[in-house]
This record gives sequence, structure tokens and C-alpha cells, in this order.
Amino acid sequence: MVRQDRAIRTRKLILENMAILFNEVGYDAATIAALVERTGLTRGALYFHFASKEDMARAVLDEAVTREGLSPQAFKLQEWVDLGLLLAHRLPREPILRAAVRLAVDPKARRLFGTRWPDWVAVGDELLSEAKVNGELLAHADPAAVSRAVVGAWTGVQLVTEVLEEKLDLSQEIAGLYQLLLPSIVTPVVLAKLDLSPYRAERLLLRENGGEQAPDHE
Amino acid sequence: MVRQDRAIRTRKLILENMAILFNEVGYDAATIAALVERTGLTRGALYFHFASKEDMARAVLDEAVTREGLSPQAFKLQEWVDLGLLLAHRLPREPILRAAVRLAVDPKARRLFGTRWPDWVAVGDELLSEAKVNGELLAHADPAAVSRAVVGAWTGVQLVTEVLEEKLDLSQEIAGLYQLLLPSIVTPVVLAKLDLSPYRAERLLLRENGGEQAPDHE
Repeated sequence: MVRQDRAIRTRKLILENMAILFNEVGYDAATIAALVERTGLTRGALYFHFASKEDMARAVLDEAVTREGLSPQAFKLQEWVDLGLLLAHRLPREPILRAAVRLAVDPKARRLFGTRWPDWVAVGDELLSEAKVNGELLAHADPAAVSRAVVGAWTGVQLVTEVLEEKLDLSQEIAGLYQLLLPSIVTPVVLAKLDLSPYRAERLLLRENGGEQAPDHE
Repeated sequence: MVRQDRAIRTRKLILENMAILFNEVGYDAATIAALVERTGLTRGALYFHFASKEDMARAVLDEAVTREGLSPQAFKLQEWVDLGLLLAHRLPREPILRAAVRLAVDPKARRLFGTRWPDWVAVGDELLSEAKVNGELLAHADPAAVSRAVVGAWTGVQLVTEVLEEKLDLSQEIAGLYQLLLPSIVTPVVLAKLDLSPYRAERLLLRENGGEQAPDHE
């Protein structure tokens, strides 16, 4: 059991360091040699966990569509927003999630492994369709089109936020995006009841991890 | 004069073909050898126009912040929307514009050349600030934050649109994005007078190029 735990930790360590390399130099220039140097592990240890660089890229993308921290809410729309806020909170802290976006916008990696955008669009479409059935959405709002627009907008806001010189916080920027978009698709009554705070994700994750005192930013 | 025209056309041909290579294989893997093969030009001819691959990447980025087709409108907000619609119309038709986005999301190219996102954010901020002074925006709308969100959202919608399997039209997707965002920032009176049609850019460009019959899609 202890041995298995260690194996899981080592696998995660390898994947995180490869993700950092993907982020820093891109898919093509990231090498096993650089990974050996970063981790101090032997090639044998690396190949015990992953067959190849391609295998690591696939593992990065497999971790990209995550619902960690998500819990059932009174409004399906809140769950849909929570997905985006949770990812915005986690991405600056988790190189593997950043690398998944990086691989999606890299022409070679994209050709080899595809992207997880269609999966994200499907997840959003499903939640928004339920919200629509529940009467949370305005009549003209098209769940598939909105989900598509928001997966794109979320991705681009992340990419631009990390480049702009100002010290921008991704959670703030993504919360601002939802605040811009939601009035066009949600009924006013539901809108007034949604929590679009940039600190919401942190609270959700603390609650899930059994933290007793959620930080109070407001 | 004829000679100069030919030089301008050759320069454009080189830049377009290098842009196609950047789009297909990424900055790092794009080579002068592949460019020679694509264009049929000699290395001497290429180096007459550009000193290096780096020089071509810079030239691609220099063409990225473009106001082609833009003309003064009754509302500054219409000009701001027109910028985004014009770019959405042109990008699928112009490899150089696509390559500018591609270089911006490539870690190595970004480190070497930066991106034009700060310039786009500044252009949007300026137009939105004028719109605010003119009373076109709602009181709470922050020009800098909205400009940042829309530069990000625009970029991401473009990246995701070209990946999704469905035959999506970028002009339609970007028009949809503005239709989602604008009700949160514009006064209802101005909103009713804006043209957010996906066919608007085509009409603006035809008018500029002296076309007499604009296509009528509606």
C-alpha cells in the first residue's frame, strides 16, 4: 500500500515536471533528457511509468476535463459557472492543467493528440440544457452555442491573462467574463441568486477537502 | 514602379507562405528550406526580402494589428465591434493573420517576439473609453476590463472554432460572442442601433474596395 502510494506520487511528479517543460519550451522541444535533469530520476524510473513523451502528453490531456470541487447546486447554471471558476482557480496552481491548454494550441501536439475542447463543450452543453429545461435560461439562449462560445472565451482569456504585463488574477478575469455573459442568457431572478465571486472556487475546494475555516475575502 | 510592385508582391508571397508553415508546423519546425520548396524562390531571393526566420515572424506580427475596412461610425461602439467582425471575416482568408495568433500562443515565439495582445487591448480600451464619454456604455462598464476580456474571448473563440469538427464559421461565432457580451455593457437605446450581423464585415470591405453590389445574405 505504501509502495503503491509512492508509485502514484512518483507518477504525478513526473507528469508535473513534463507539464512544466511543455509550458516552458513547447511540446516539440520538451525532451526526456531535460525531464531526467529536472526530476533527478533515472530513465528507467521514467519509463516504468510512461512509455514515451507521447504517452505523457496523452496523460496530461486526460487530466484536463476535471470536475474536482464540483457539487450539486440549486441551479444547474451555478454548477456550469462553478466548473469554469474552479478551473480558473486551479490552473495557475497546477502545471498539468496549464499544459493541457498549451498542448491544445500547439499545432503538432494538436495533430497528434487532438484537444479536450469538444469534451468541455459537451459538458457545458449538457449542464446548460438541463438549466434550460429547469427554466433558468432565457428563451432564446442556445445551450450548444453558449457552451461553445464560453469554452473558447475561457481559453482565450486564460492565454491573454498570462501574457499581459499587469499582475492579473485569472479567477478575477474569468469571474468578470461570466458577469459579462450571463445577463444575456439567464433570467433576472436566477441571475440575482447566482454566486459569481472570484473567491467561490477557493471556498468550494476548501469545503470539499474538509477545511473548516473558509477564507473570507469579502 | 513596375519593378517595385513586383518586389512588394514577392515579399507578400514569401510572408504568406512562411505564415502557412507557421500555422501548419509551428514556429520552431518551420524552416527556410521548406519555404524554398513551397515558393520555388531561391534562398537569395528570400534573403533579399527578409534577413531571417525571426525577421519574418516579426513581419507577421507587425501585420496583426490592422484597421483595414474600418470607417467612422455614428457610435464608437460600432467601430469597436467592427474591428472584431472585420478580423473574424479576414482571418480564415489570410494566413498571415492566423499565423499572428499562432505565434502568440507558441511559447518560444512568444518569448522571442512578444504578442500584439497588449496593442489590441489598448486599441479597444481607447474606443470603449470614447464610447463611454459619449454615453453609449452603461455606468458600471469598465473600458479596460471589457477590452481585455474581449481580446481574450475573441482569440479563444478563434482557436476553438478551428478545432471543433462541425463546419463553423468564424464570423458567425464572433458575431454570437458580441451578441452575448454587449447587453451587459451598452445602453439599450444604442444596442438597438448597432449592427452585429456576421455579414457586416464583408459589406464594409466591399464598400472600401469600391464594390458596387454588396452581397445580401439576409
